[in-house]
Amino acid sequence: MSKRALSVTREQSFPEWYQEAVRDGDMAEQSPVRGCMIIKPWGWGVWERVQAELDQRIKDTGHENCYFPLFIPMSFIAKEAEHVEGFAKEMAVVTHHRLKNEGGKLVLDPDAKLEEPLIVRPTSETIIGDAFQRWVKSYRDLPLLINQWANVVRWEMRTRLFLRTAEFLWQEGHTAHADREDAMAETRKMLEVYREFSETVLAMPVIAGEKPANERFPGADNTYSIEAMMQDGKALQAGTSHYLGTHFAEAQNIQFQNQDGKLTFCHTTSWGVSTRLIGGVIMSHGDDDGLRMPPKIAPRQIVIVPMLRDKPEDAELKAYCAELEAELKAQGIRVLVDLKPIKSAEKRWNWVRRGAPVIIEIGGRDAAGGNVTFMRRDKLRDGDKVISHTQARAEFVTGAKTLLEAIQSVLYAEAKARLDGNIVTTMTTFADLEAYYGASAGDDEGGEFKGWAGVMWAKPEGAALEAVAERLKALKLTIRNAPLEQPPVEGKTCLFTGEPAKEYVLIGRSY
Amino acid sequence: MSKRALSVTREQSFPEWYQEAVRDGDMAEQSPVRGCMIIKPWGWGVWERVQAELDQRIKDTGHENCYFPLFIPMSFIAKEAEHVEGFAKEMAVVTHHRLKNEGGKLVLDPDAKLEEPLIVRPTSETIIGDAFQRWVKSYRDLPLLINQWANVVRWEMRTRLFLRTAEFLWQEGHTAHADREDAMAETRKMLEVYREFSETVLAMPVIAGEKPANERFPGADNTYSIEAMMQDGKALQAGTSHYLGTHFAEAQNIQFQNQDGKLTFCHTTSWGVSTRLIGGVIMSHGDDDGLRMPPKIAPRQIVIVPMLRDKPEDAELKAYCAELEAELKAQGIRVLVDLKPIKSAEKRWNWVRRGAPVIIEIGGRDAAGGNVTFMRRDKLRDGDKVISHTQARAEFVTGAKTLLEAIQSVLYAEAKARLDGNIVTTMTTFADLEAYYGASAGDDEGGEFKGWAGVMWAKPEGAALEAVAERLKALKLTIRNAPLEQPPVEGKTCLFTGEPAKEYVLIGRSY
Repeated sequence: MSKRALSVTREQSFPEWYQEAVRDGDMAEQSPVRGCMIIKPWGWGVWERVQAELDQRIKDTGHENCYFPLFIPMSFIAKEAEHVEGFAKEMAVVTHHRLKNEGGKLVLDPDAKLEEPLIVRPTSETIIGDAFQRWVKSYRDLPLLINQWANVVRWEMRTRLFLRTAEFLWQEGHTAHADREDAMAETRKMLEVYREFSETVLAMPVIAGEKPANERFPGADNTYSIEAMMQDGKALQAGTSHYLGTHFAEAQNIQFQNQDGKLTFCHTTSWGVSTRLIGGVIMSHGDDDGLRMPPKIAPRQIVIVPMLRDKPEDAELKAYCAELEAELKAQGIRVLVDLKPIKSAEKRWNWVRRGAPVIIEIGGRDAAGGNVTFMRRDKLRDGDKVISHTQARAEFVTGAKTLLEAIQSVLYAEAKARLDGNIVTTMTTFADLEAYYGASAGDDEGGEFKGWAGVMWAKPEGAALEAVAERLKALKLTIRNAPLEQPPVEGKTCLFTGEPAKEYVLIGRSY
Repeated sequence: MSKRALSVTREQSFPEWYQEAVRDGDMAEQSPVRGCMIIKPWGWGVWERVQAELDQRIKDTGHENCYFPLFIPMSFIAKEAEHVEGFAKEMAVVTHHRLKNEGGKLVLDPDAKLEEPLIVRPTSETIIGDAFQRWVKSYRDLPLLINQWANVVRWEMRTRLFLRTAEFLWQEGHTAHADREDAMAETRKMLEVYREFSETVLAMPVIAGEKPANERFPGADNTYSIEAMMQDGKALQAGTSHYLGTHFAEAQNIQFQNQDGKLTFCHTTSWGVSTRLIGGVIMSHGDDDGLRMPPKIAPRQIVIVPMLRDKPEDAELKAYCAELEAELKAQGIRVLVDLKPIKSAEKRWNWVRRGAPVIIEIGGRDAAGGNVTFMRRDKLRDGDKVISHTQARAEFVTGAKTLLEAIQSVLYAEAKARLDGNIVTTMTTFADLEAYYGASAGDDEGGEFKGWAGVMWAKPEGAALEAVAERLKALKLTIRNAPLEQPPVEGKTCLFTGEPAKEYVLIGRSY
């Protein structure tokens, strides 16, 4: 039995802890529709903050938002499928446009069968590419820098809230450029936007790098990712950015007249992050008392709980809380006075589990003395004991923004220490890898903490790469990426083959 | 041939003018998917402003945003269909979850047929009601005030950009209450939010009222709407708010324990506005030169066009424009310097057609003299001549916010005069109605301008109401609503039957 606010600790079972943290943190729940989630107000509030912060960055880098149809004609997908090996086929297919009432029962109307089935978008390269083909005529139209916020559907057999769901929400950037150089610069620029966003806003440190060829987006020349380390040591791919070469442009005839009047194929890119990021935030920062929200994305940064006692003095208490609320709002802080008709202690623990960065409890003594008593969610306890601080109200209000910044920094620093401290760079042979990961290889769900291995390899291609991937798969491992910041490689040998090394890559288990 | 920026005038053909205004205003275009639109950056920017303004009002009235699944199990729809007569059956049905490659061709995989078909949400009463049934337990949980921003799909045979599309975007509010009084207050409160929003933000005056029984949302006890008058005299239903009684609660078992411990059905409401509002804005304010965007929703309120001449002096001109841009930004104005590599005159007319509220053209003389030369989109011309104004830069910057407010007011005042001046309240017999509307009854698309009729009626029910609806239908008319603000009814007689009147209603043609 846990002495904490959740019934399962991370150590007992990380997957069960995750489920409980999501549920008791009021973030989301399973819906009656297989694999689709209901995002509850607190969870949606986080997504709204994510959207606002990231959208600003997407606009600041010159992109414009659009909206493209939910449905994609099957022929578009077929065109792509011909073109692209490894194309995923699990998707929701619309085949009819009407139901009919047959003897009091609602059934599919056979007269309303679509001539061509429609696919619920799993991603929008094909439908957006079709528009680009119409919109791009001359070099003057380039670069074309488009983004959309949308829901997408990928049929998934095993789902987990936020991490893998049939329907999820994301942004997808799609851009067209005159040449490789410009498109590659875009691909890398957006990867950097994701890195900075993840670290600054989500307090989630990541390693930016390039995926190996076998982990590329189908049709991409290069796929880059940011990878974050969760508290169970697993990697979460938190965002990807793809340089698509001219593959999609050729399949969809996206051509422009260059400055010499010659028709030329565009170079395109795409990049996206999704509601999966929220799963990353939960698994990065949560503790055995529930969620810990970085202040920059917390829907409410400070929650005030008046210790009401159903007595006449309550009015005074409420007035005091309202004044405090107004003062904090004036500082630009997202604040809430929780006046729900439930017990104060229950409120405290609700907000602890939801991860409100600062929880204030105002009792009669605080109000009389002009004080504020509060808890920091990032440093809730000393051993088993909950720590509360008391400060003069004016002092608290003046320091509130700094306090929130400090909490943001603490969450980042903790996650950063975990990431930096758990990349093992001493392995040089496959036997080292087996020795490190082997013991818990059979355990898919949690188990002993294992970090990542930072190893040298010869960057094989084709069949040789597949062989490496197979060997890793037996240990439930994948190559996460080759970090952009490479250590010196000369003189090192490949962990898999002993050949001279060409690259430093990160290996780990992943979500 | 038009002497204006569009090739078709409103008078020549309002429907063709609309199509051209949408297209040349860069708002949206048809997609290769039947009935689905692509919303382009300028159009999407308008929707972002609509969302931001309305979302704030929805939150200020105590609602929280959530997100519910895109798909609804067919059994949920069936439950509703049993319950609700007049239930629409045109919707997108997902029957399969996989495609397979058969001899190089992509086909439906018969092994991946869903056990139960899924409906792409046409509206979310059933899926949200199912969550409410789980979330509501006690009177302490009420009222439950939820909103979501989402895409929905209704299969439509005849579509028109923004006005009627198979997929559209909207917000849908869903709330549960302890009793009729509270639910009805909510229904009316949100109608008022829509009215205020439409008039203040969209500069689109509306009449708020109750729909007649035959025009109610299926399953609603009362449906209220706001109705706006377009420039062709037709009514656009711009938003609806429904009091659903306990119908949905009974069908979905949404019950709560009241203060006496007794299980009781909730009273529920729903209310929504959609991307259709954008069509309303276009048809309210556009002129023969294209769109005229109310400053409050214009993605760019002021656009600066430097009159570049590919000469060394261009650098100076650009610097001057950048300074002006910074000064206007500092005033909180959404401003853009258009540096696209196209001719200045082309830029001017692009922004005229898009409806940017203020278009500034900066030439060498302006820069040298410290001046600003600008056009107001609301008062673009004097006869055929375009009017431009010149002001000292400091003076222009200081007055810019006031100028934008003035433009917002002009657009509202023009639309308000049209609405107020075109409701004919002198008709007392059906023959009057026939005489007024009859001449153009056969013309579905545009034709002679006809306003609305404000008439007295006896508010018939059942078969008598159907008979009235049939007589109106022959003239292509419907009852729009019974305005909340009613003139005196005593002593008046029903236009349809001559009986004593019970209510004042508005009649018109509609979108």
